[in-house]
Amino acid sequence: MSQERAENFGKAKNAGTRIAARAPEPRLALGNRVFTAEKVLLTRMMESLGNPPLALVLWDGQEIAGTGSQPIARVLIRDHGALLKLIANPELEFGEMYTAGRIEVQGILADCLEAIYRAMMRRARYGQITQKLLAPFNAPLRNTVPRARRNIHHHYDIGNDFYKLWLDRDMVYTCAYFSSPSAGLEEAQAAKLDYVCRKLRLTPGETVLETGCGWGALALHMAKHYGVMVKAYNISKEQIVFARERARTEGLDGQVQFIEDDYRNVAGKFDAFVSVGMLEHVGVDQYQALGAVIDRSLKDTGRGLVHSIGRDRPSPMTPWIERNIFPGARPPSLSQMMQIFEPFGFSVLDVENLRLHYAKTLEHWLLRYEANVERVEKMFDAAFVRTWRLYLAGSLAAFRSGDMQLFQVSFNRAGQNRIPWTRQYLYTS
Amino acid sequence: MSQERAENFGKAKNAGTRIAARAPEPRLALGNRVFTAEKVLLTRMMESLGNPPLALVLWDGQEIAGTGSQPIARVLIRDHGALLKLIANPELEFGEMYTAGRIEVQGILADCLEAIYRAMMRRARYGQITQKLLAPFNAPLRNTVPRARRNIHHHYDIGNDFYKLWLDRDMVYTCAYFSSPSAGLEEAQAAKLDYVCRKLRLTPGETVLETGCGWGALALHMAKHYGVMVKAYNISKEQIVFARERARTEGLDGQVQFIEDDYRNVAGKFDAFVSVGMLEHVGVDQYQALGAVIDRSLKDTGRGLVHSIGRDRPSPMTPWIERNIFPGARPPSLSQMMQIFEPFGFSVLDVENLRLHYAKTLEHWLLRYEANVERVEKMFDAAFVRTWRLYLAGSLAAFRSGDMQLFQVSFNRAGQNRIPWTRQYLYTS
Repeated sequence: MSQERAENFGKAKNAGTRIAARAPEPRLALGNRVFTAEKVLLTRMMESLGNPPLALVLWDGQEIAGTGSQPIARVLIRDHGALLKLIANPELEFGEMYTAGRIEVQGILADCLEAIYRAMMRRARYGQITQKLLAPFNAPLRNTVPRARRNIHHHYDIGNDFYKLWLDRDMVYTCAYFSSPSAGLEEAQAAKLDYVCRKLRLTPGETVLETGCGWGALALHMAKHYGVMVKAYNISKEQIVFARERARTEGLDGQVQFIEDDYRNVAGKFDAFVSVGMLEHVGVDQYQALGAVIDRSLKDTGRGLVHSIGRDRPSPMTPWIERNIFPGARPPSLSQMMQIFEPFGFSVLDVENLRLHYAKTLEHWLLRYEANVERVEKMFDAAFVRTWRLYLAGSLAAFRSGDMQLFQVSFNRAGQNRIPWTRQYLYTS
Repeated sequence: MSQERAENFGKAKNAGTRIAARAPEPRLALGNRVFTAEKVLLTRMMESLGNPPLALVLWDGQEIAGTGSQPIARVLIRDHGALLKLIANPELEFGEMYTAGRIEVQGILADCLEAIYRAMMRRARYGQITQKLLAPFNAPLRNTVPRARRNIHHHYDIGNDFYKLWLDRDMVYTCAYFSSPSAGLEEAQAAKLDYVCRKLRLTPGETVLETGCGWGALALHMAKHYGVMVKAYNISKEQIVFARERARTEGLDGQVQFIEDDYRNVAGKFDAFVSVGMLEHVGVDQYQALGAVIDRSLKDTGRGLVHSIGRDRPSPMTPWIERNIFPGARPPSLSQMMQIFEPFGFSVLDVENLRLHYAKTLEHWLLRYEANVERVEKMFDAAFVRTWRLYLAGSLAAFRSGDMQLFQVSFNRAGQNRIPWTRQYLYTS
C-alpha cells in the first residue's frame, strides 16, 4: 500500500464524526467556507456527469445542485478538501473520498452508483469525439509479463480466506449463469461451469488449455464431469496453491495440471482452449499475442471460448477501479475482442452477452460481503471494507446500468464443419 | 452488358466442341503450343492457390500440375488464351473463362470450388501481410445513393420470374434456418422468418423498420403473425412492385408499407429495426451512416437485428463475384460490423453464425436451379446459365469451406434491462 493510501485508510478509521468538527486541513487555508465559484463548479460537475438524480449535501447542511428530478440518494461531502478533490476529478475522487470516509452515501449505494452510470451514459451517447480525444491519456500500462504478475498479485493474492467469505463454495470469481433470476449462487456458478463445457463440446479424453484459471473450479469441473485432461495456467501464486491442493483432495491431480505461469508461455497442442475472466487483465495491445498463443496451441479441429467483461464501445476503465482494484485492466468492446480472432482467421460461432447475469452475481456477492463485514474489518481495516463495498456495489451498478457487458465468445478453427447445427442442444438437458 | 461480355457470351454458345478444332485466335500468334515457361507459371499459380487437389487438363490432353493428392475434379482448359488469362488472374478469370465455356469442370462443380477455397484458406492462414498490402487495391466502390441503386438494379431486377424458378414460395433470397439438416426449404425459410421475429421479441401493435426488404416476405410475416406495423425499404423496383402486390392480395397493405427508397432516407421512430441480407451491399465505409440511421430511428426501448453474410477477417470480395454478380458488395468481418453499433453505443446481445445453414440453403437453390436450366436458358442464354451455376455452386462452396460466414447480430439500446434473461425462449415452442 502506498504512503498516501495508508494515510487515507488511517483517516477513514476516524471517519465516524463530522469533518466540520475537525480543524481545517493545513493546505486548505480557506477553511470550510463554500464559495459561490465552488457551487458553480459543483453544478458544472453534476452537468458533466449528466445530472444524475442525487442530492449533494455539504458538511454544513447546505444542499447543492438539485437537478429537478427526485433524488434517489443523498451524497454527503464531509469537508472542503473532499469537495475540491471531487470537483477536480469526480470519476477518481468519488471513490477515493468514499473510501476515506470523507464522502458518504445516504440511500442504497448500488442504486446511487447506477444512477451516476446511467446519467453518464446518456451524456456520453453522442460524446464519441471527446472520448476519442481523451483515449491516449487513458491508455493502460502495457502488461508485460512481470507487470502482469504484479497486477494480478495486487488483487488475487490478498488472501483466499477473504474471498471465501463471499464467493460460492467452488470459489468462482466470474459471472455466474442463472437459469432463472431466482436461482441461488452455488447453483448458478455450477450451471455456468457446465454451460461453458457444453459450449466447448468437450468429450472424454480430450485435452484442454485454460489460461487464467482462478482457484481452479472450471478446470476441476471439466476433468470431473467431462473426463478431459486440463493444463491450467495462472500467475496468482495463492490461487495456484489453493487449486493444486483441491485437485489432490479430489483425486483429480492426474487429470489437471495447475501451472504458475503467464499465458504467453504456454506449450503443447490441445483440443480446446478456454479462458474465463482473464481477458480483462490482458490489455488490448496484447490481444494479438493471445491470439497467437491460441493459434499455436489449438489442433486443427480445435475450438475455444473466451469469457470476459466487456463494453459497448472502446472505453477507458473507471480510473478509481484501475488505481485501486484492477491495475492494468481494460474490458474490451467486441471489435477489440475480435483482434484476438480475426488476424488468425478463427471463426466466431456464437457471442452471448450475459450482462444481467453478472449484475445478479454481484447482488449475491454484495449480500454475502455485507453479511461478513465485521470479519473483513478484522482481517484488514474499515477503509478496506469501504473500498471493497464501493467496488462490489459499483460493479453491480455498472452491469445493471449497461456500462459494462459480459461476453462469451465461442470460436472454431476456420472451415471446421464439425460444429453444432443449432444452439438448441444448449437448452435441452 | 459490356461489349467484351457480349463477345464471351457469344463464344460460349458454341463451346460444345473442343477448342483445338478451332482456328487459333488471331491475337495469340503463338497458337496453341504450350511452352515450358507456361507450365512453370501454371504450377506456380496452383501453388499460389494453395495446391488444391485438382487436375488441370489442357486442350491437347496434357495433364499439368499434379499436386500429389488424389484429384477430386478435373479442370479442362480449352484453349491457349484461356490458359494465359487464368495464369494472369486466376481469381477473376476462372469464372470468366468458365462462363465463356473455355474452362470446364469434370466432377462436382461445388466440390471443386470448395477444394479451391479450402486450399486458399490454408494458404492465407498466415498471409495477413499480403492481404493488408493488397487491401487498397481491392477497396470497393463507395456506394453513394445513386451507385447503390445501380448495383442493386444489376442483380435484383433481372426478373422475378427467374427467381421464382428456384427460390421458395415466399421468395426469400437469404439464408434459411433448418431446425435439422433434413428440413425442406419452404419449412426452413418460414422457420428463419419466425426465428428473426422471435429474436426481435415483437409484440402486437409495435412498429418495425425494415431496410432491404427483398420481395417482402419478412415484412409480411411480421405483420401477419406478430401483429406489427412495418415500414419496409428497398431500392429494387421489381421487388417493391412484387411486394406491394402481395401485400394487397393478402390484405396486409394496411399494416405494411413498402417504400422504394434508400436506407439513408428513412424517417420515423420505431420499436424495432431489422435488416436481413442488405448489409453485404452497404459497404464498410457506410456502416457508420447505417448506425446513424438506426440510432435516429429507434425509440429508447428499441432493439434490432442485422443478418448478413460475413467473413472471419476483413477480406476483399471474390473479384469475379464483384464484377459479375454483386457490384459494390463486401461481406464484413465482425469487427467491421461493430462499426455500425459501437459508435452509437448499441449493446450487442447475441451473435449467431449460421454458415452451414447457408450452405444447406444453397444446396436447395442449386438443385432447383439445375432442375430449371432449360427454362433459364430460354429466358436468357447459355452463358447466363453458366454464370449463375458458377455463382450458386461457388457460394455453396464458400459457405461449406468456411470462406464465408452468416452472422445474425441482435442488439438493443444501451442499458435496456427489458432483455431476455436467457436464450432458452428461442428453443422452446
